[in-house]
Amino acid sequence: MKIFSFLNRASRLLHDSPACSKLVVLCTLSGGGFVAYSESQSDGFAIPNINQSECKKKRVVVLGTGWAATSFLKDLDVSSYDVQVVSPRNYFAFTPLLPSVTCGTVEARSIVEPVRNIIKKRNGEIQFWEAECLKIDAANKKVFCRSNFEYSFVGNLEFSLEYDYLVVAVGAQVNTFNTPGVLESCHFLKELEDAQKIRRSVIDCFERAVLPGLSEEERKTSLHFVIVGGGPTGVEFAAELHDFIQEDIVKIYPMVKDLVKITVIQSGDHILNTFDERISSFAEQKFTRDGIEVKTGCRVVSITNKEITMTIKSTGEDCSVPHGLVVWSAGIGTRPVIRNLMEQVGQGKRRVLATDEWLRVKGCEGMYGLGDCATIDQRKIMEDIAAIFEAADKDKSGTLTVEEFQDVMEDIIINYPQMELYLKNMHLSGCADLLKDPEGNDRKEVNIEQFKLALSHVDSQIKSLPATAQVAAQQGTYLSRCFNHREMCKDCPEGSRSFRGSGHHQFLPFRYKHFGQFAPLGGEQAAAELPGDWVSMGHSTQWLWYSVYASKQVSWRTRVLVVSDWTRRFIFGRDSSRI
Amino acid sequence: MKIFSFLNRASRLLHDSPACSKLVVLCTLSGGGFVAYSESQSDGFAIPNINQSECKKKRVVVLGTGWAATSFLKDLDVSSYDVQVVSPRNYFAFTPLLPSVTCGTVEARSIVEPVRNIIKKRNGEIQFWEAECLKIDAANKKVFCRSNFEYSFVGNLEFSLEYDYLVVAVGAQVNTFNTPGVLESCHFLKELEDAQKIRRSVIDCFERAVLPGLSEEERKTSLHFVIVGGGPTGVEFAAELHDFIQEDIVKIYPMVKDLVKITVIQSGDHILNTFDERISSFAEQKFTRDGIEVKTGCRVVSITNKEITMTIKSTGEDCSVPHGLVVWSAGIGTRPVIRNLMEQVGQGKRRVLATDEWLRVKGCEGMYGLGDCATIDQRKIMEDIAAIFEAADKDKSGTLTVEEFQDVMEDIIINYPQMELYLKNMHLSGCADLLKDPEGNDRKEVNIEQFKLALSHVDSQIKSLPATAQVAAQQGTYLSRCFNHREMCKDCPEGSRSFRGSGHHQFLPFRYKHFGQFAPLGGEQAAAELPGDWVSMGHSTQWLWYSVYASKQVSWRTRVLVVSDWTRRFIFGRDSSRI
Repeated sequence: MKIFSFLNRASRLLHDSPACSKLVVLCTLSGGGFVAYSESQSDGFAIPNINQSECKKKRVVVLGTGWAATSFLKDLDVSSYDVQVVSPRNYFAFTPLLPSVTCGTVEARSIVEPVRNIIKKRNGEIQFWEAECLKIDAANKKVFCRSNFEYSFVGNLEFSLEYDYLVVAVGAQVNTFNTPGVLESCHFLKELEDAQKIRRSVIDCFERAVLPGLSEEERKTSLHFVIVGGGPTGVEFAAELHDFIQEDIVKIYPMVKDLVKITVIQSGDHILNTFDERISSFAEQKFTRDGIEVKTGCRVVSITNKEITMTIKSTGEDCSVPHGLVVWSAGIGTRPVIRNLMEQVGQGKRRVLATDEWLRVKGCEGMYGLGDCATIDQRKIMEDIAAIFEAADKDKSGTLTVEEFQDVMEDIIINYPQMELYLKNMHLSGCADLLKDPEGNDRKEVNIEQFKLALSHVDSQIKSLPATAQVAAQQGTYLSRCFNHREMCKDCPEGSRSFRGSGHHQFLPFRYKHFGQFAPLGGEQAAAELPGDWVSMGHSTQWLWYSVYASKQVSWRTRVLVVSDWTRRFIFGRDSSRI
Repeated sequence: MKIFSFLNRASRLLHDSPACSKLVVLCTLSGGGFVAYSESQSDGFAIPNINQSECKKKRVVVLGTGWAATSFLKDLDVSSYDVQVVSPRNYFAFTPLLPSVTCGTVEARSIVEPVRNIIKKRNGEIQFWEAECLKIDAANKKVFCRSNFEYSFVGNLEFSLEYDYLVVAVGAQVNTFNTPGVLESCHFLKELEDAQKIRRSVIDCFERAVLPGLSEEERKTSLHFVIVGGGPTGVEFAAELHDFIQEDIVKIYPMVKDLVKITVIQSGDHILNTFDERISSFAEQKFTRDGIEVKTGCRVVSITNKEITMTIKSTGEDCSVPHGLVVWSAGIGTRPVIRNLMEQVGQGKRRVLATDEWLRVKGCEGMYGLGDCATIDQRKIMEDIAAIFEAADKDKSGTLTVEEFQDVMEDIIINYPQMELYLKNMHLSGCADLLKDPEGNDRKEVNIEQFKLALSHVDSQIKSLPATAQVAAQQGTYLSRCFNHREMCKDCPEGSRSFRGSGHHQFLPFRYKHFGQFAPLGGEQAAAELPGDWVSMGHSTQWLWYSVYASKQVSWRTRVLVVSDWTRRFIFGRDSSRI
């Protein structure tokens, strides 16, 4: 029983020290070793606030268990809130590894963590219901939910919850752009089930291609894999698929190895067009070397379960190609429950749910929108220009001196982050530069019309945030901080001066900090955009990718599982059983 | 790149040495260690037979990729056969670990090995088609198959194959005994998909039970898990479920931990009634201590998705209990394709496909039945008694002396294994004892009538083999040996003397060697029946179980995966994400 008690002790050790800040995971598995340098995030669980415990707790309902919701819940101080979480999935999934799941590089279970595990240290103060939110009633502060269980059921599965604060973090759904046949004939890559389905279907394509009695043409069609969308997800899937086929599949289906073809269809001129262009062209070159066809400037017009039809933008011609499997990763759209909410709150004409810079949904009180389901509608400097001028013009002279402008500049930069970008991109060093006349001469002071003219191009720098895990996670953390400091900041607001109203904003607005992004390209190579406009490409970047992705796992359990999956893949290859 | 090349080398080492006969797998995973002593089976791949390479190869079609088919394929000498394998599953599953998969003690992928991996060393001489055999045409030696792919399809998915020899190893299906509602409302535990479904449904039951607005009674109903059938599968599942709930689930669903109930319904008087009665009562006692209710002597008469109705045999009364989930593991039945075959070959009135002792399907030539889909119809000694007497009576005197009987005894024991069992169970030492007169006096010789009387009870010892992996695997190995020695044994038969015909049988008949069986009972305890009527129970038996099950894995890959799953369970517990 010695081994048993050793394991128990090891288990307790790992459970009890979630915040060892740096640790070397040395994982030796049957002769294979892999070293992951992992920087653990501090769990930062709530510090109970004793003074508040007697007030009536506000009811917080959180919709979703993705990146935004989970990072909100992780840091929330539950001593002042009654928290209820509603999601059709009782787990958090580490979505950046979804493309790896499609080919079995990582197993589906290795990237999920049950929500109840994440919240269980809160002594039951956070409640979770596995249900889908069907409708948000913003006027009455209520949400209507329904559980959806596969088998026999007991009791009523519908219920409603009342809230004081609602955190909407339900994510997005696939956007088909109304292309005919997409829903019926394509695979997607949004949910874990999608990745598992793709994995089965890839094996199906090979099993089908080797069946007796098929023509060479039919075998080729069955092995033509098409990816629509050249963004990071599509490109990573193409790379994973290529690796899977070359490293594992050809060994067991050698008879059809020359018939395989992978095509990436991109409507823009380049794949990975949100990345630095060096990365984009590196990826295109690597794909060409690997035999992955990249069709740029092509717009898909329809898909059947036999062929895909697209328009070549340059010539306007249509062409059709037969396929064995299509993965659609062309963009994200709004979920019906959010669409309905938008109509209730007067946002019916918008494309995405709009929030202000404090993540509050515009047009309704006590509701927050995070992650992919919402976007920050950054206020424009030109809309507030008169108020800014008035606030800055302390001596009410009708003109603004450089010094007066200087005094409000800090608040402007906080409230209108486009100003900082504008200064940087225009290579302006400060207020004096901004207020120069059109010929470039210094001006001591400006009137309102001159001020408007000087700032007229600042709003062109407004950028909406990308729909990434990184943004969602930062928003969740930001919002939990606001919730935790709500009482404190009521009396001493921490935000900047409000130009439109009087006094100060209660909180600082949300600011996104970009830590860079990765694009794994297959063959143990990756490309990365790092902070400070650094670009890194090649094998070493892949190892950086391994380290970062291992360290960013939400729990020690998933970290160990992901690393052991990678190790297993190195030693034994990927599994091709169709389950 | 040092780590990479190390891994590559390690990988190659593991690929190239499948027959290292004994090895200690030391798997250290983040502070948790587990030692598995594993006795690897020798892979025994075919030795090419150069002399035969010029003959026309016989076509062998194998139906199935379970225990019987896989062990047949592993040892088959493909130099003299063209082999085609047809199965709807492109993998072999280590079915004895299915109950562990239902609760996530072991992952589904850890117990499967792609068939193509198992056969790939044969240089493409074995072909595999992922398809279901729909019909066997015994008269024309043809099988009709159909592939069943989920998504878009290419070409014709139906095909037929001609064979010279057909190996039928399709396994069995669930037997509902025509109980109403079983197919609609029960889970089963035959296939990997079944185990995965049960896992999701168990989590569903808990998620449903904690929903707001349910009555205590509804919560209790949702958490009532019923297992129909107290055989090894049902008992192991009950034990796994109990462990899962007590060790992992109650920690994250603490609010409902007192409402959980597990019930095992058994129609016989005891659970595990194929085991030694010490094991059976040990299991019952352990279950009682664990709070698992065992209802013996109850026959289930109907099931709906709300309740299960049964008749208590002793009183004849009916009673109904509400349930949250029912797992039906009450027995196995014949698949439709086998039922159809049986009608073709004149076995329409039998319950199971019958083969002779050489595993040849009775009533048709060139066809073999292995594993759960067939049973050996042992020939009776009394049917051949006249022929045996005639063959033994060398001097044609009309009487048989002890010596004459002695001369044929060896052949009798080989052809009629019930004779050996009879001698052993009756405590008879040999022929002289057998031929004693009814008063117990020695006889020098006997006539035919006396001989018949002396052997009249021998056939009562005929036992049909259990439908286990062990039997199926031994049958596969036996049959591959027959196939490999077919040419050699044509000239010099290795079998015993044929009493009915003349000469010798070409091969020795199949003889099953029982290596014992395990029944894991939860809480790190197991019971085992070992060869030589040994019985072992408790914690040490569980460790023996771990060692045996690790060593019996079909590949090094699955061995490492299963052991690391066990380790992971010790350290992190089982995952409760509903995927």
